[in-house]
Amino acid sequence: MRVLGIDPGTAIMGFGLIDYQNSKHKPLAYGAIRTSKDDKTEDRLKQLFHGVNRLLDEYKPDVMAVEELFFNRNTTTAITVGQARGVALLAAGLREIPVGEYTPLQVKQAVVGYGRAEKHQVQYMLTKILGLQETPKPDDAADALAIAVCYCQFGGKGSWRSAK
Amino acid sequence: MRVLGIDPGTAIMGFGLIDYQNSKHKPLAYGAIRTSKDDKTEDRLKQLFHGVNRLLDEYKPDVMAVEELFFNRNTTTAITVGQARGVALLAAGLREIPVGEYTPLQVKQAVVGYGRAEKHQVQYMLTKILGLQETPKPDDAADALAIAVCYCQFGGKGSWRSAK
Repeated sequence: MRVLGIDPGTAIMGFGLIDYQNSKHKPLAYGAIRTSKDDKTEDRLKQLFHGVNRLLDEYKPDVMAVEELFFNRNTTTAITVGQARGVALLAAGLREIPVGEYTPLQVKQAVVGYGRAEKHQVQYMLTKILGLQETPKPDDAADALAIAVCYCQFGGKGSWRSAK
Repeated sequence: MRVLGIDPGTAIMGFGLIDYQNSKHKPLAYGAIRTSKDDKTEDRLKQLFHGVNRLLDEYKPDVMAVEELFFNRNTTTAITVGQARGVALLAAGLREIPVGEYTPLQVKQAVVGYGRAEKHQVQYMLTKILGLQETPKPDDAADALAIAVCYCQFGGKGSWRSAK
């Protein structure tokens, strides 16, 4: 199973691709799609859409995994992250790629085994699980890989649910 | 100038098309694209994307107008509205259709001449401006038409700005 994890954002959209077989995680690629704040929103969304489509073309993942978003304060951020998230989900929808969605708690549980783990603990365990030499950078790419690992852990057990 | 106003939402996305010439507004079409909550988010976003693209194909608007979103409380709503908004902006971006964005205050100012007008005042004046026999329904379509009227008022004067 090949999983594309996405950490959505308009300025920077993290991605992480993992092959999961026989309980082994093999990282294929990770990084971030970046857009400039000097560009208009509709152009930035277009760049993100093309970027995600390029990943789908090149790596042909079986599934996409995204984090369920919670914001306590900043609704303006929620809207711009929502816009980027919508574009990523649309790219999956247009190709009928199933989408799994997880809470931050589930992601931490899957990677560290503890839902309240600190960010550095998640990154440390992620590096071990994926057999990487160093922590994936930027943080958005690490987050996307963690979401992909979460899908690998929960996806096969039927406890995941599709994005709402 | 032909303007497509959009009032974004995942369950219901209002649209309103207006031809504006010689200071006259001619309504061409209005209504709403609806999606079912029984469908997965990625499928609903795909339906919205196809719906907006059909409007762009059929009516070939010169510009798109959307409301700038503010939410005081519900960030979950902000995310889902943001997702739908992102898909509409993407559709414009992919065809290089300019997007104008207005605050609710600007929309009320354009339609009623008073930024703190009540909803029923906006709908009443909108009906007059567009020469309609009755208030456009649903409310989302009326809102989309009001945003399109706002573009007509402000768009030509250079005071509008592109979506951020």
